[in-house]
Amino acid sequence: MTVLSKTIRISTKGNCDMIDITAEIAREISNSTINNGTATIFIAGSTAGITTIEYENGLISDFKDMWERNVPLNLPYQHDRRWGDGNGHSHVRASLQGPSLVVPFTNKKMTLGTWQQIVVVDFDNRPRDREIILQLLGE
Amino acid sequence: MTVLSKTIRISTKGNCDMIDITAEIAREISNSTINNGTATIFIAGSTAGITTIEYENGLISDFKDMWERNVPLNLPYQHDRRWGDGNGHSHVRASLQGPSLVVPFTNKKMTLGTWQQIVVVDFDNRPRDREIILQLLGE
Amino acid sequence: MTVLSKTIRISTKGNCDMIDITAEIAREISNSTINNGTATIFIAGSTAGITTIEYENGLISDFKDMWERNVPLNLPYQHDRRWGDGNGHSHVRASLQGPSLVVPFTNKKMTLGTWQQIVVVDFDNRPRDREIILQLLGE
Repeated sequence: MTVLSKTIRISTKGNCDMIDITAEIAREISNSTINNGTATIFIAGSTAGITTIEYENGLISDFKDMWERNVPLNLPYQHDRRWGDGNGHSHVRASLQGPSLVVPFTNKKMTLGTWQQIVVVDFDNRPRDREIILQLLGE
Repeated sequence: MTVLSKTIRISTKGNCDMIDITAEIAREISNSTINNGTATIFIAGSTAGITTIEYENGLISDFKDMWERNVPLNLPYQHDRRWGDGNGHSHVRASLQGPSLVVPFTNKKMTLGTWQQIVVVDFDNRPRDREIILQLLGE
Repeated sequence: MTVLSKTIRISTKGNCDMIDITAEIAREISNSTINNGTATIFIAGSTAGITTIEYENGLISDFKDMWERNVPLNLPYQHDRRWGDGNGHSHVRASLQGPSLVVPFTNKKMTLGTWQQIVVVDFDNRPRDREIILQLLGE
């Protein structure tokens, strides 16, 4: 059994920018010595999340609209009153979405559906450089 | 340390149909050679999710109502305009819920609460055959 | 490769009470024989969840307000009609949030952001004693 840890670095535009990281993760699994196990994908930071989606422009827009309806930008957030960052909504969205995802792989292939990509959603209110930790456990 | 992967196949009615898969998972753990470790439960596809709930008819209905209030069926989704599938809401719900869950087990018993079941929620707008990947890691 | 399981016990006030358990988890990793691996954090029970947040009073309040807007206490829940517990909203919130989180660690340090804490959110409508299972897998 082996543990492998890798950092994936991306730059985002913030404001619900959604980045597809499926290919990078598939490549790391392919290049590793592990055939079967779990890929844990974790984003450091409290204003972004990880999930899966069919990565196409319609849903990228629909997902953003859902966040704006349910956790709107223009509410009076206590976080903004105290700290003045203007990203209270970003934090609340990230905590609801969650920062981690675990995907099994067998014979070096993730068990994703055909139209299911792994994405980072950056909820912050400005462009950010992000570090995603990919950890592979298996044999 | 061992990695075991199993596929659980279910048929759903779609439209927030919720299926309790706790017994199947408990049986796979019981039949395995692993005493202590994690059970990763992952659903392939971008219109379904995995979570836990007290599996009783009241909450099954309440959970569905929550989705209809917060991510309604009858909004104009860009996904539907582009692709005509009519399941834009299903994709958005699935991405918010998330496709995976990790449950620890010790002495072959999952650490669930008494009234806590593991469920698949199928958000799609039609009946579906689904594959859930169960992967056990431990010793 | 090693599997270690620990139970963290906390008391909460319910009603979206949010408890920071980062220090306990960091201490267990530090005291363990594992240098690199995953920390799976799972809460037993169907009315609480686990996530990460910047743990400061503004966001603690904002997160609670988000739940009250999106999954309000004062709706007619079928769960309450059937069982009279008055905590239908607690169950629905917990199922949306999710009961588990997986955080990688390397060289005994979790890959959290600087302002990112691991929290239990107790959605129940009364004070509760809670058991969080921490399971470390790695080498």
